[in-house]
Amino acid sequence: MEGSRLTKAVQREIEAAVQGSCSAAREDRICYSFDATDIRGLPDIVVWPESPDHVVAVVKIASRARLPVVPRGAGTGYTGGSIPICGGIALSFEKMTRIADVNVTARVAVVEPGVVNDDLRNTVESLGLTYPPDPASLKVSTIGGNVAEGAAGPRTVLYGTTGDYVVGLELVTMDGSIIRTGYLASASDVSAAWDPGPLIVGSEGTLAVVTNVALRLTDAPEVTRTYWAEFGSLDDAAAAVAMITADGVPVSVLEIMDGDTLACATEYVCGRAPDTRSEGALLIEVEGAADDLAGMWGRLRPILESCGATGIRAASDENERDELWEIRRSISASLARLGTGKINEDIAVPRSRIPMFIAEMRRISEEVNLPILAFGHAGDGNLHVNIMLDRANRSHMVRAQQAVSMLFSAALKLGGTLSGEHGIGITKAEHLAEELDEAALRVTVAVRRALDPSGLLNPDKILSDRPNPWWDDLRAPAVGA
Amino acid sequence: MEGSRLTKAVQREIEAAVQGSCSAAREDRICYSFDATDIRGLPDIVVWPESPDHVVAVVKIASRARLPVVPRGAGTGYTGGSIPICGGIALSFEKMTRIADVNVTARVAVVEPGVVNDDLRNTVESLGLTYPPDPASLKVSTIGGNVAEGAAGPRTVLYGTTGDYVVGLELVTMDGSIIRTGYLASASDVSAAWDPGPLIVGSEGTLAVVTNVALRLTDAPEVTRTYWAEFGSLDDAAAAVAMITADGVPVSVLEIMDGDTLACATEYVCGRAPDTRSEGALLIEVEGAADDLAGMWGRLRPILESCGATGIRAASDENERDELWEIRRSISASLARLGTGKINEDIAVPRSRIPMFIAEMRRISEEVNLPILAFGHAGDGNLHVNIMLDRANRSHMVRAQQAVSMLFSAALKLGGTLSGEHGIGITKAEHLAEELDEAALRVTVAVRRALDPSGLLNPDKILSDRPNPWWDDLRAPAVGA
Repeated sequence: MEGSRLTKAVQREIEAAVQGSCSAAREDRICYSFDATDIRGLPDIVVWPESPDHVVAVVKIASRARLPVVPRGAGTGYTGGSIPICGGIALSFEKMTRIADVNVTARVAVVEPGVVNDDLRNTVESLGLTYPPDPASLKVSTIGGNVAEGAAGPRTVLYGTTGDYVVGLELVTMDGSIIRTGYLASASDVSAAWDPGPLIVGSEGTLAVVTNVALRLTDAPEVTRTYWAEFGSLDDAAAAVAMITADGVPVSVLEIMDGDTLACATEYVCGRAPDTRSEGALLIEVEGAADDLAGMWGRLRPILESCGATGIRAASDENERDELWEIRRSISASLARLGTGKINEDIAVPRSRIPMFIAEMRRISEEVNLPILAFGHAGDGNLHVNIMLDRANRSHMVRAQQAVSMLFSAALKLGGTLSGEHGIGITKAEHLAEELDEAALRVTVAVRRALDPSGLLNPDKILSDRPNPWWDDLRAPAVGA
Repeated sequence: MEGSRLTKAVQREIEAAVQGSCSAAREDRICYSFDATDIRGLPDIVVWPESPDHVVAVVKIASRARLPVVPRGAGTGYTGGSIPICGGIALSFEKMTRIADVNVTARVAVVEPGVVNDDLRNTVESLGLTYPPDPASLKVSTIGGNVAEGAAGPRTVLYGTTGDYVVGLELVTMDGSIIRTGYLASASDVSAAWDPGPLIVGSEGTLAVVTNVALRLTDAPEVTRTYWAEFGSLDDAAAAVAMITADGVPVSVLEIMDGDTLACATEYVCGRAPDTRSEGALLIEVEGAADDLAGMWGRLRPILESCGATGIRAASDENERDELWEIRRSISASLARLGTGKINEDIAVPRSRIPMFIAEMRRISEEVNLPILAFGHAGDGNLHVNIMLDRANRSHMVRAQQAVSMLFSAALKLGGTLSGEHGIGITKAEHLAEELDEAALRVTVAVRRALDPSGLLNPDKILSDRPNPWWDDLRAPAVGA
């Protein structure tokens, strides 16, 4: 879908509908044209709805005027899901940030989509509860965005992903209807008939606009213990992951990183490279009642040692824990400083096959002659692989494109998936047919058409014939060719 | 949809497609015409598929011949979901009972839909794992049926419902495509894009035929403690439920029953009425590590005592535990012997509002002058209310119909739902619009049409203009009128 245009008349209609909470100024539109990819798509107008009624009014106008509607959280996505690639309306939820209710007895919070993940966690933790899904972006990313992408995080290994916590949704469909599902339909834990709610999680804003979310909370753990281990090779670290998994240690966090990633993040956090170089590291946590955790280190340590771990340590206090986490959480920021570009992919494989994937990744890195750094949520098999390159270097881009295809093939061959938690968006749409067979794609299309017959809701995402804009330059004739 | 007819030619086609694993003999068709309601619907043919390929072949023939297809588990449903009310093909999964895989490391079992719930549990318990969802029908009902209805059970209060355990599905759609979702698409825990799988759970076989299910397993609890308490009034028992919930005691079972139910089930199990009459009882369990449970009785007992409980006891061994459970599990069978009929409804309300619902139920019982017995899964607010009557007595039926409407209204007014775990099927379809608003119904219709454009998959279930057959006689002129 191309060339949507906002007329002055429609713009005035929108302004009236949302009492001026919108802007068609170029400087505002630019601010909503991007996410964490390098892709850009300029909206025709930015709208900041303040209520579900605003959203209803806006989608009705958009339907009539044939304007795309692109819901947007904090814009931290890695696959272009929130980029208005076809123009139209960027629907940003920065003004819908209310935590409307925390029902401590029912262990359910009702929040607006613009609530920042970490703000929700801090609020409910003050009540003795917690909200486990913890994407690395948690300090900025919003619940609406987390729901759209089905966000996961380090604690997913024990607690599952966002979808495991959504117990009710308020949705606005493109015909301007409001639908409430689950907890938001009836205050009880169950609801009549089948619930279209679960379909929305991970649909990247292509089926309906989420305007309220009911989230299940859990009891905050009594105690958390944090451990760290380094290894002489990434293979050894991966082997330790497989052994910990097979042993059934109930880890709540099991993060892996390779030597370059570790060195880069350490330097970023500490201002200097680590004293001794390691080729792999694991950040491990267990949580629960203090008594239950007493024996845990006794189970973990021998496994780590048998895999050749060095520098094994247990964080002795909250400060030491924060230091270890700061290294982990700084990875993306530190890698961004490393070169003139990176392409971040987000595959997942069964945990037992991480060592096989790492070996394959290393082979691909050699074949294309580009560094590929890996880190991620080893506990649920979700690895972030980063191809380091200079985006201005055409040869780098040609080889990166090959590497991406090879990495996806390798993951799928190992029984894995294209996307652990970043969604499909724009950048992976061209690869979706490699994972989903024809019948599954047909159902995906049919359901999308059923929910949004207009085709205006976040168009050209997930299902798209649009080539991945990353490789646009490669399709143009080379300069001088 | 009425008057579907099976021609001899189509019958021969089906016979060839499933290598004779089918029957159009009247005696066989009768065996597949019912469930636990009193409704009957004779299929034109019964097919026992032995593989997904059989199912594909059968739905292709059915689509061409315009024959309804009605998937069926053990036929224990309470709302008519598996009754071939429009004729056509009864697709019974009695020959697809393979537990194909139990992956102890991944804690996932892959099973065919005909596997009996309790057979799966016994198998995985021998491996130190368990499958928590435990509908009262667990000794006969099948995983396929459990998935279709989104079955719950006593342990739902702690563990959730069937939907919380489905991590992958193999589906056959009415166009004869096979779709694999989640764990059955990629062996990892996550899958690309959004997953139509969750939509299937609770869809009562109206969207696709399930031919394989991947189920998440959990660690078997180290210890289970079972408690029993009786009360001078049902209100007191309901108050105890609300207090236990508010206190946050992590009960794994919290079952309630009223005095008549208790007397009836006790007599059924023990051969004589209880020595002293109680007006309410609770069956309570906690489970986990022995150390964690040590303090639990100390928390529960004062709550029970403060609500006036008498006859408080803790089961001292497995025999005593079995006795208590036998009373609970015999309720339905014992009530069936009590009169010449009952109408079983399955509402749910927020747990804190159970006392209010019970008061309203008692008022309704007086108003219509029919006994209404209540028992159920108080822990998740799910109550089974049984209107006791003589089905041949027209006045009883008139009053029962009024009572059902009043009970549903009462549940909805309290923020509850029409159906906790029995589905909508045939008997509740006429009430669905009281719970779902117009937009939600529209989406339900659109999604169903997207998945099954033929309209042949379990027609006239959930969404139907067909009046509830229970009241058929009331619509005919009264005899002698």
